[in-house]
Amino acid sequence: MAAIHTQSDASLWRDLAPLMRPKSVAVIGASQRAPAAGLAREPRGNRVIRNLRNFGYPGRIVAVNPKYNEVMDCPCYPDLAAIPEAVDCVILAVPNRHVPDLLESAAAAGVRAGVVFSAGFAEIGMEGKERQARLEALSKEHDFLICGPNCYGVLNVFGKAPLFASLIPQGFLAGPVALVSQSGGLSTTIANALMLNRHVGLSHIVSCGNQAGVTVEEYLNYFIEDENTGVVAAFVEGFKQPAKLMAVAQKAIAYNKPLIILKGGRSEVSQRAAATHSGSLAGAAEVIDAAFRQGGIVQVRSLNELIDTVSLFSCETFVKRHNGGRRIGVLSGSGGECTLVSDAAMNVGLEVPELSEESKSRLPEVLPDFGNLNNPLDGTGAMYDDDKIFPRLLQALIDDANIDIVTVNLEANDPRPKELKSGNRFSLAITNAAAAANKPIAIFSSVVGGPVDPDILLPLRAAGVPLMEGAECAMSALRHLTDYHQFRKSWQPSGQDAAPASSHPKFPAGILPAEAAFRLLDSFGIPVAPTFLTRNAEEAATAAESIGFPVALKIESAQISHKSDLGGVSLNLASAAEVRDAFFLIRDNTTAKLPTADIAGVVVQRMVPEGIEMILGIKRDPLFGPVVVCGFGGVLVELLKDVAIGIPPISHQQAHSLLQGLRGWPLLTGLRGKPSADVKALCDVIFAVSNMATSLGEQLLALDINPLVVHAKGHGVVAVDALVQIG
Amino acid sequence: MAAIHTQSDASLWRDLAPLMRPKSVAVIGASQRAPAAGLAREPRGNRVIRNLRNFGYPGRIVAVNPKYNEVMDCPCYPDLAAIPEAVDCVILAVPNRHVPDLLESAAAAGVRAGVVFSAGFAEIGMEGKERQARLEALSKEHDFLICGPNCYGVLNVFGKAPLFASLIPQGFLAGPVALVSQSGGLSTTIANALMLNRHVGLSHIVSCGNQAGVTVEEYLNYFIEDENTGVVAAFVEGFKQPAKLMAVAQKAIAYNKPLIILKGGRSEVSQRAAATHSGSLAGAAEVIDAAFRQGGIVQVRSLNELIDTVSLFSCETFVKRHNGGRRIGVLSGSGGECTLVSDAAMNVGLEVPELSEESKSRLPEVLPDFGNLNNPLDGTGAMYDDDKIFPRLLQALIDDANIDIVTVNLEANDPRPKELKSGNRFSLAITNAAAAANKPIAIFSSVVGGPVDPDILLPLRAAGVPLMEGAECAMSALRHLTDYHQFRKSWQPSGQDAAPASSHPKFPAGILPAEAAFRLLDSFGIPVAPTFLTRNAEEAATAAESIGFPVALKIESAQISHKSDLGGVSLNLASAAEVRDAFFLIRDNTTAKLPTADIAGVVVQRMVPEGIEMILGIKRDPLFGPVVVCGFGGVLVELLKDVAIGIPPISHQQAHSLLQGLRGWPLLTGLRGKPSADVKALCDVIFAVSNMATSLGEQLLALDINPLVVHAKGHGVVAVDALVQIG
Repeated sequence: MAAIHTQSDASLWRDLAPLMRPKSVAVIGASQRAPAAGLAREPRGNRVIRNLRNFGYPGRIVAVNPKYNEVMDCPCYPDLAAIPEAVDCVILAVPNRHVPDLLESAAAAGVRAGVVFSAGFAEIGMEGKERQARLEALSKEHDFLICGPNCYGVLNVFGKAPLFASLIPQGFLAGPVALVSQSGGLSTTIANALMLNRHVGLSHIVSCGNQAGVTVEEYLNYFIEDENTGVVAAFVEGFKQPAKLMAVAQKAIAYNKPLIILKGGRSEVSQRAAATHSGSLAGAAEVIDAAFRQGGIVQVRSLNELIDTVSLFSCETFVKRHNGGRRIGVLSGSGGECTLVSDAAMNVGLEVPELSEESKSRLPEVLPDFGNLNNPLDGTGAMYDDDKIFPRLLQALIDDANIDIVTVNLEANDPRPKELKSGNRFSLAITNAAAAANKPIAIFSSVVGGPVDPDILLPLRAAGVPLMEGAECAMSALRHLTDYHQFRKSWQPSGQDAAPASSHPKFPAGILPAEAAFRLLDSFGIPVAPTFLTRNAEEAATAAESIGFPVALKIESAQISHKSDLGGVSLNLASAAEVRDAFFLIRDNTTAKLPTADIAGVVVQRMVPEGIEMILGIKRDPLFGPVVVCGFGGVLVELLKDVAIGIPPISHQQAHSLLQGLRGWPLLTGLRGKPSADVKALCDVIFAVSNMATSLGEQLLALDINPLVVHAKGHGVVAVDALVQIG
Repeated sequence: MAAIHTQSDASLWRDLAPLMRPKSVAVIGASQRAPAAGLAREPRGNRVIRNLRNFGYPGRIVAVNPKYNEVMDCPCYPDLAAIPEAVDCVILAVPNRHVPDLLESAAAAGVRAGVVFSAGFAEIGMEGKERQARLEALSKEHDFLICGPNCYGVLNVFGKAPLFASLIPQGFLAGPVALVSQSGGLSTTIANALMLNRHVGLSHIVSCGNQAGVTVEEYLNYFIEDENTGVVAAFVEGFKQPAKLMAVAQKAIAYNKPLIILKGGRSEVSQRAAATHSGSLAGAAEVIDAAFRQGGIVQVRSLNELIDTVSLFSCETFVKRHNGGRRIGVLSGSGGECTLVSDAAMNVGLEVPELSEESKSRLPEVLPDFGNLNNPLDGTGAMYDDDKIFPRLLQALIDDANIDIVTVNLEANDPRPKELKSGNRFSLAITNAAAAANKPIAIFSSVVGGPVDPDILLPLRAAGVPLMEGAECAMSALRHLTDYHQFRKSWQPSGQDAAPASSHPKFPAGILPAEAAFRLLDSFGIPVAPTFLTRNAEEAATAAESIGFPVALKIESAQISHKSDLGGVSLNLASAAEVRDAFFLIRDNTTAKLPTADIAGVVVQRMVPEGIEMILGIKRDPLFGPVVVCGFGGVLVELLKDVAIGIPPISHQQAHSLLQGLRGWPLLTGLRGKPSADVKALCDVIFAVSNMATSLGEQLLALDINPLVVHAKGHGVVAVDALVQIG
């Protein structure tokens, strides 16, 4: 995987132009015998032609249908070979059984891309999987770009190219957000919510279905390179090219184009659903989480959190004015909401600081009768009764040095009984304040739901004030923004401090003997307790004397993994005599209990002083390959599965972040007066293990250092036991 | 607190009739010089009279204003004393400074209740607190019912009595839900969302503000007794009568009227906000959580979760058809949503089982070309193209024996561009299926937001199919329903197995000496390690011989709490000689390190065999008084604050539930092959500690048993060290 990061960008990514901005398209599956527009059974081919027309597609459109000479005023040919001009992209609105043949003939005719709407591929049984395999082969072997199958296609807004199967409403809003969703239905659901409920414009909508050809990762890369796109949003069920995901995440950070992703398929049931829906392998949730965190990808947990986070990140004025801080000021006319939003802020780790002393002394000057000087700032009924109050309270928050982001709780919903409307009375004041402010201002409603009032939404959005609905989503979105800022600030391109890949001998398959395992760790700079394999009691005693007492003895046999259960371990031996006795004892114990075991000898190891016991290892994820796993021994890992996961290569800085993410982190910094541990040495070892993962590649199936003893600051760490599995 | 539960219901609760359904009201603060209806500055008094008229209030309305003989066609008197007839309730729409005098004169004139809208009481400075104190005195000493101050008042829908300051929209929907919210703004926000976005009708809206008189607990009790109310919803910042909360929770369970509460003020900042807003003491979040769990109160975490949970619980047909099970079936036209809703279900602990074998064999008969036989059931594009498919898929879920609750993902929102509408095509099929079904059916949308289409919402709600918005809220609401069902099923009235309160001697204030503490524990049936206080080495040796070796010695001094830090503890003493030596050693250690300490002697205690170390104690919550706290020693309690909290009296069954709520619970049931612990004995001790809390009452400031050693099943538990603090 490390190799990926050293490849040049051009060799990593295909040019998607024939799919995303084709100069000419051929539509297969349009008909003269089509019912009226908008009806359920209108052929998708006709709908695509209508979409292309409505969007003002500047390229050439032809239809393919042996029955007609023209369809919807487009020239129509009996087959692809009959089309006189070159076709960039073919759009297949035909039953799935025809798809592989048609695409293969398209590729043969020089077409470079295709969009396949129909379902019935890898998401169903064997027949579908075989169909999809032909598409995948075409994509790989002929570099033919395929969107789908089982999708709505691609819609390039600024390129006016909607190769898109779904109805596109009038008044489509162009803007900086590119959206990719495997699911067709959710692609339009998300897009419509962004446009209608947030006034957020789009540069692309892609529904990519089963990703038989072009993958989510490739679309993300295309968006990052696209000049019209500033923010990328995605709903993904499964990644197909995880190594490219890490590369595109780096590129996104470098270009400052945030990737905001909702990843479905966290549970067993949803992984079953994802496999059924788009033939996706969802991947282990905790590994995906780790990859997102490490790559600076903004991970959201619900559709509404996605919508509000995109609403915030895509509001250019807001983002520009944000200093990166997480101190939130809140103004509300409802004291109850002040309480709720404070809880929501706490839940996501935002600060709601007290007002500055300056504000507290200045506010009474401009509002002598107004008693509340808190944050959240409760405007009370007074702000409804006296129009002077709201603007002054808002300005106080804008001017307050304790506050990084100003939020206003505003009923922006447009309830059916118009007499309930009150938000408009305040939105003008916010628009005015925002025009002059140098601090970011956002608004949020209390309840999510009901129509959003365009009279409030549109002028505020134009003034750089984004809307979010509900305190919980609003605070989550703000937290994402501050985290993203923090990540970019401390970000450095990966691989900079990674050791150069070295070549290692090929190991025999199976579990490495202890001595060999320790030698291998040592060769990567991982400190190990001095360890020797001995064949008899005398050798053991001599080895013990050479490494110094006290020592431990452990039986060595490829057949025995739980050594102490069989009486195969003896600890704290203080003399050569004790070592000799112990040698015989543990050999006899184990041969008595497991007579068939092939005993290689007894390992003599220097006893390691007490410290914090951790586990550190490498396991293989079906999606990401080797990942580094780290945690505390005992109840934290056994009961709470409190482990940190990193995707190699892992820098020292990333190792430190991993450790900070563990619940047990305070154990390392010195819980209740205990000395702090040698975190630096621990980070060195995580870095070394990451190097080991990238250097050994596929031959390393698993590594399990348990325990890794972490001593007090300055005293290092030691691997006491290690299991290396070669494949 | 235990005493509360033995009081008769009548002695616990006041009759709220004069406030909730007054026969006559006097409005102070209405004027002839009022601007037009609906304007911001219309006097609240006028608005209340308009509300009363619009609602058809059947009682008598008079106004009080020395300037007029009539206001809005109501007779108007110069003061309360001048009103010829008896007045049940006075409504004060006047500045706060006039309120105390007016209420006192009303009480003197025989009025029995009052509603106070104005702010400026306990939520502001000293002056306001004094004002509120006069109201509280009036409530207590003259049994005068006060709603507010700092509120919108009460609205009794079926009694047609809106003593309510806010504008009430036309088309108010009457129904089974009673709502109380301290916050006025949120009371109407929640009510409007329920009526407009969920078609849920209300029996009452109460905004009770600062609760200077009638408390949230009293309103809850009133609602539970009210024949028109079936479900009670609340937004609460602080409880004033927590003991009554526990009583009303019991009554709610007995009456089967669910209490659904959103409790604000979980964080330090929000507690500051709550104090400012309504003068509320929010209470420790974890104690509130414990009280809710123990009382079967449904706790929701956001306004939208409140709205969706109420939508579900108030749908009578749905609830009646629910068998209590948590196996969810899902039908959606979007495969992406199938993935997301599965994740949401997993997050809250609902099951999404596979379809039964019967369904899997029967579905292909009715839908031969439909390949998907999963749950969630993805209707795919096919269900949009062929109208036969959706009803058959729905019926398959209804008929499936593996499924307790059927949910349908339906776009029930009504987007501005009407051509996007597709939900109506399916809602008729659901309505038809629901009419014939004996299984509960609910619908949920993917995204929360946008107008809800009344053409979908109303007929479905009428057919017993509630709407929820967003997979996350929908699954949370369903989980609440199954939990509530489970709680009621296993519920038994509290106090049944509580020991009778016994009288105890008065202890001197301070920390009890070890021997006295152990005697006290023993008197409550808590097993303790045999423990004797000895004055000299000989006494210690004799004591050790009498209780049996090995023993531990611990220095006993009121000035020393961390005994081992001073060398004041010696463990595992195996003989009288060792005991004598240890006696001198620890005495000398401690006097050397702390010469001023007053040494009472040395405690001799039988060594307790190893086991699982827990902590068990009593602490005082500012709101609930004594609460029982239980957890595991070590990293779980130190690092993760993993403690269970119970409100006495705690039954054996409740003690068991508490333990099950601990993250460390698997340690007791036998983690990784270890033997399971004596959970029964542990529950006995929790029960005993709860008795101790209720028996000793206020003189017990704190109890801390640490460690309480829990042995393997059948071998009991032992308190090894205990600290008892008397106040």
